[in-house]
Amino acid sequence: MHSFAALSKIFEEKFATRHFPEHTKTLYDPAQYILGIGGKRIRPVCVLLANELFDDITPDAYYAAAAIELFHNFSLIHDDIMDKAPVRRGMATVHTKYGESTALLAGDVMLVKAYEYLNKVDAAHLHKVLQLFNTTAAEVCEGQQLDMDFEHRETVSLEEYLEMIALKTSVLVAASMKMGAILGGAGEGSQNHLYEMGKNLGIAFQVQDDYLDAFGDPEKFGKQVGGDILANKKTFLLIQALQTASAEDKKVLQQLLQSNPANKVQEVLHIFKRCKVDEWATQLQEQYYQKAMQHLEDTPVVSARKQPLKELADYLMTRQS
Amino acid sequence: MHSFAALSKIFEEKFATRHFPEHTKTLYDPAQYILGIGGKRIRPVCVLLANELFDDITPDAYYAAAAIELFHNFSLIHDDIMDKAPVRRGMATVHTKYGESTALLAGDVMLVKAYEYLNKVDAAHLHKVLQLFNTTAAEVCEGQQLDMDFEHRETVSLEEYLEMIALKTSVLVAASMKMGAILGGAGEGSQNHLYEMGKNLGIAFQVQDDYLDAFGDPEKFGKQVGGDILANKKTFLLIQALQTASAEDKKVLQQLLQSNPANKVQEVLHIFKRCKVDEWATQLQEQYYQKAMQHLEDTPVVSARKQPLKELADYLMTRQS
Repeated sequence: MHSFAALSKIFEEKFATRHFPEHTKTLYDPAQYILGIGGKRIRPVCVLLANELFDDITPDAYYAAAAIELFHNFSLIHDDIMDKAPVRRGMATVHTKYGESTALLAGDVMLVKAYEYLNKVDAAHLHKVLQLFNTTAAEVCEGQQLDMDFEHRETVSLEEYLEMIALKTSVLVAASMKMGAILGGAGEGSQNHLYEMGKNLGIAFQVQDDYLDAFGDPEKFGKQVGGDILANKKTFLLIQALQTASAEDKKVLQQLLQSNPANKVQEVLHIFKRCKVDEWATQLQEQYYQKAMQHLEDTPVVSARKQPLKELADYLMTRQS
Repeated sequence: MHSFAALSKIFEEKFATRHFPEHTKTLYDPAQYILGIGGKRIRPVCVLLANELFDDITPDAYYAAAAIELFHNFSLIHDDIMDKAPVRRGMATVHTKYGESTALLAGDVMLVKAYEYLNKVDAAHLHKVLQLFNTTAAEVCEGQQLDMDFEHRETVSLEEYLEMIALKTSVLVAASMKMGAILGGAGEGSQNHLYEMGKNLGIAFQVQDDYLDAFGDPEKFGKQVGGDILANKKTFLLIQALQTASAEDKKVLQQLLQSNPANKVQEVLHIFKRCKVDEWATQLQEQYYQKAMQHLEDTPVVSARKQPLKELADYLMTRQS
């Protein structure tokens, strides 16, 4: 059995190869580029961790893990085009470096490559793995569309935001875990516990993401603290603040959303603090974390095998960036 | 057994349904939109025709046919974004109607939907069908990238253009035929003959496309005759003309490529005629058509069953639009 850290290292080393042919370079070099600029590889490692929960890791789990990481990077390339984002992981985004058309195509071919990896999975599991992957892939697209739709709306309820976040980010973590379980020969019950564990962990992860963007330690966060506030991004914090702020704070907050004063981040953070959305977010994250842990607890596997998945969850919950 | 016309009608009727969920409408309505604005459905009908060559049509062939048509429309949506094309089949393109970001996502989710249809295919054929589909999908992306690369190049050889066209358009026709054969239980030899038939037919189709754009009957063509010439598009005709024109015609042609005089189409057509690229193209098309027919001839199936595929080939070769 491997620790979370050991598995992360093993995957990183296996994945650090060229995944595409040399010809056509103008298409495949951009696709390879984004794979080379880092990333935490959380999702593929989830496949491996969930797989090893049930038995030794099967070679199929590596194929599924690679497919998941390729899918994730496909969605990043296309999201960055839609968001007109110039930088990702401190490097130029694919469309900035190679142009939008090529980035679009490089994303497309990366999605196809993900299916090539899935098609290496043993025939006994292929249909089920594909079904899960297809459903999840469509959901991620739905989540991204909802996210764009919300940008044009004045108000978004917490419930709507949760649905969007679940689709856009959590279902892929959930599916990664479930895929590992399927390939590990786990029963339906265990597969579903792993799915729910991943889904709740994914939401906790996103709450943490929103929290760090506002309250993170600037020296450790790695990005500009307050970026979401400056972009008027609807986050867990903003949605909760708009719902719980005093009438006066709410009015100021709405004015701040429609302007860009020099002290905008500071002012919004003051209101966030007055509404105690920082404490609220910490509690919310804890709730989802506990739900995730309960699903792991309820998975009928001896406790000792669950340790690496607990390490992953702890890592995600205590990260500073 | 069905005629080509009968199978086209059957597919059109089966395919005329909503392929996507209601929620999220803002994502799925745009995807559904392009499926509703027509198209010849050549590729899915190729799946069915090739399938029925060997036995009664299997239900799996309809799933594969739907997957192929969805893939084709996915590639059209994304190509139209890259080409900034405002109109397709006389209607607004998806990105013109719904915005680029939504069109990008609608294309993505349509590709995923294609894989959902493929995953309905019987387990005995799933791996092989997926492998063919994945290879083909990647090749179509490569073809589109080469096409974009060629736009920025002064000269493109006939050989390079042929490679690009084969990837961008022919391999999908070829794969459609081969997929039908696989699902019909055909042997490897027959599968490959059908693939080569489709590939050669696809190239003949593209030669015809280039020819009609320059020399088509304006009343029957449906698009503006000379569109490729006005866009300085590298076509079979232009590449051949640049290689075979007299020194003087070549000079004039290159000047015309760098300017947009009112009589540009007329002038270029004069040069085309003087180089006899119209006759050359007709012969080239005939060569590829004959190659395609030879592969059909060499497929070890009784002659009577081949009639519908011959009808398809005749239809493609004699079309006026």
